[in-house]
Amino acid sequence: MSKFRDLALNLAIEAETAAPAMAAADGGRKNAVLLALADLLEKSAKRLIAANLKDLLAARKAGLSPARLDRLTLNQRRISAMADGARQVAALPDPVGRVLDGAVRPNGLRLSRIAVPLGVILLVYESRPNVTVDAACLSLKSGNACILRGGREAFISNRELGRLVSRALKSAGLPERAAQVAGAPDRELVTSLLALDRHIDLVVPRGGKELVAEVLEHSRIPVLKHLEGICHTYVDASADPGLAKRVVLNAKTDRPSTCNATETLLVHHDLAGVFLPDCLAALAGAGVEIRADPATETIAGRAGVNVVKATEEDWKTEYNELILSVKVVPDLDSAIRHINSYGSRHTDAIITSSLTAAERFQREVDSSSVMVNASTRLADGHEYGLGAEIGISTGKLHARGPVGLEGLTTYKWLVEGSGHLRE
Amino acid sequence: MSKFRDLALNLAIEAETAAPAMAAADGGRKNAVLLALADLLEKSAKRLIAANLKDLLAARKAGLSPARLDRLTLNQRRISAMADGARQVAALPDPVGRVLDGAVRPNGLRLSRIAVPLGVILLVYESRPNVTVDAACLSLKSGNACILRGGREAFISNRELGRLVSRALKSAGLPERAAQVAGAPDRELVTSLLALDRHIDLVVPRGGKELVAEVLEHSRIPVLKHLEGICHTYVDASADPGLAKRVVLNAKTDRPSTCNATETLLVHHDLAGVFLPDCLAALAGAGVEIRADPATETIAGRAGVNVVKATEEDWKTEYNELILSVKVVPDLDSAIRHINSYGSRHTDAIITSSLTAAERFQREVDSSSVMVNASTRLADGHEYGLGAEIGISTGKLHARGPVGLEGLTTYKWLVEGSGHLRE
Repeated sequence: MSKFRDLALNLAIEAETAAPAMAAADGGRKNAVLLALADLLEKSAKRLIAANLKDLLAARKAGLSPARLDRLTLNQRRISAMADGARQVAALPDPVGRVLDGAVRPNGLRLSRIAVPLGVILLVYESRPNVTVDAACLSLKSGNACILRGGREAFISNRELGRLVSRALKSAGLPERAAQVAGAPDRELVTSLLALDRHIDLVVPRGGKELVAEVLEHSRIPVLKHLEGICHTYVDASADPGLAKRVVLNAKTDRPSTCNATETLLVHHDLAGVFLPDCLAALAGAGVEIRADPATETIAGRAGVNVVKATEEDWKTEYNELILSVKVVPDLDSAIRHINSYGSRHTDAIITSSLTAAERFQREVDSSSVMVNASTRLADGHEYGLGAEIGISTGKLHARGPVGLEGLTTYKWLVEGSGHLRE
Repeated sequence: MSKFRDLALNLAIEAETAAPAMAAADGGRKNAVLLALADLLEKSAKRLIAANLKDLLAARKAGLSPARLDRLTLNQRRISAMADGARQVAALPDPVGRVLDGAVRPNGLRLSRIAVPLGVILLVYESRPNVTVDAACLSLKSGNACILRGGREAFISNRELGRLVSRALKSAGLPERAAQVAGAPDRELVTSLLALDRHIDLVVPRGGKELVAEVLEHSRIPVLKHLEGICHTYVDASADPGLAKRVVLNAKTDRPSTCNATETLLVHHDLAGVFLPDCLAALAGAGVEIRADPATETIAGRAGVNVVKATEEDWKTEYNELILSVKVVPDLDSAIRHINSYGSRHTDAIITSSLTAAERFQREVDSSSVMVNASTRLADGHEYGLGAEIGISTGKLHARGPVGLEGLTTYKWLVEGSGHLRE
């Protein structure tokens, strides 16, 4: 353990030492790093693919699933995508230096509150090597030093990518250690890093629930966390059934593995008989398994759609696949109550033509995104125009919902006087 | 332990149940609570003083220090001050419902990001009963339910104050349990409360370093923390010596027990011979003990000012009393380096007439408030025009530096479409 503690402390201190130069770098210099990295990635494609092959061979031997092997794979197309990603981040506005607010006080004291980098960011993720580049770009663009800790299966690929990031930093006259790929592929290293709250300002876990839970469990550092996405779509009595069907289908089937996919459909009792037969048939036609409450089951039975009985557990479950739980509710209040008690405060939508219902839903549902007549799948940094997405935060502090580059900054107060005293 | 766990869970669930009504309450209703409370406090002065007397008698028996007995005491003047405080918070703008930003996306999707309450706030503080009222007012004004946990010495006073808050809530048609004084005067109750991260959104410890450290140690809930205030004033070569002397005296002696008092004076070598003799004499005249580095010691010796030799420990110490460590530095870089390595990232000031020095200092010192030609004592929510001050945060996430009512809010994204799908 002590070996990892030393290793972790060393990484953290190197990052901390590099942080002031990153914080002081202007936008042009930071963009130069990202553009140089994009070029290096393209020029080094062969070398990267060769390094990746070593990871892939070991992973195949270790019996990784085809899906995980696919995520681990680097090829020409994915390398080009990483380079394009770096160029896109370079094109974004600099989140550092924005004047957030300011005032001249009655005594003449001048105040301004400006965005500054957090300092050192630790990114913990799984076996997609492209996250290494993405995470480095976002951290550096926001003026932070970063420690990149990917899954052990991707270690050789990540080390190679880390070298390119360091070369790009050096070429722009910034410290090579402003981005470091955490060396040893051991889990204890992560635990040791997570204890270093005096050196690391923020941890961003990017990956499945288990990864996030493990980081939360061990971290003394604040965590920008994404826990669960149990998203609901509630179809109100006044909804347009055709519009509701299109939105529900999109929210469930567009990409069921994502956190903003709808997991539970709630339908107002008055519309259920009209709306559900058609909607359930369309869902079933798209390969969706329906977990139905008794009222839905009855309607589905009459409509000839096969369903499974929902259990209490279903209302608490993030399926992340083509499964949808469906419940008929007597009114808007019940829908809001259901969402606030079973949901994960991520993203919930109402489909309605009633202004009152829309307003009450948006006011009373306590979720990071509350939508009217739109697919929950739209809860996304790019869709919200944030440029880049660090992640979707299910925490309420610092950042909530889709988080852009600003999520990797804090602020400081600049105060200017002419000999001002506290009287 | 399990008794306290049940008690804590009960408090948290009561608060959580009251939270939606608080969040939905408009500004007028919340202000009605605060104004009713102000009246109730004034009308109940006798009763409050009688309850407080019981606490005082027990505390005197337990041998509390005169300073702590004084802080524990409620009298007519302090009760009026609490009532005035409640009226002042009522007069502040509502932090809830502010539109923070918004956009219409190219696909017509309408977005707005609005401030909403956090939900449930736990306040942990020491034996000043007036904090009970102040904390309740700030929590309720920002639309949150709160659990108030003061020092055990003030338990009977706090319980009485809590009853008045509940009556004020009831009189405005809001849930009485939106503010609860935590019942049993036991430390284990706090530990049990701090585990309830699924029910409580934020902990605000208000009190000394030990209290904050204990809360941080046990909390699974995010903490709005104030750790240390090791504030510096750096007198640059180009400073006006008279202005510098006035600012340094104010920063050290205005109220030495506060976190924004200056603890270390750094002086540029070129000005030290001119500036220090007069400044040290003035400090000594104001009763300040000087802990001097060798260069300062030499100058003080020549000027006939008594000093104590500073040790390495002095540069890391928040004295909170009339003691000042003083060091001569060769240049601006050394001053910045000293501050970033020994400081606590709270508030640091430069006294200078050089624009370049001022700019570099503000850019490179990584503290929540970085001042030019002003007393560090000005780092304060009221001085910054925040209306009320929840505290001064030394953390970098969510809120940094002086925190106003906005620090007790988060935001949600309201998204409106007309059948918008993710394409």
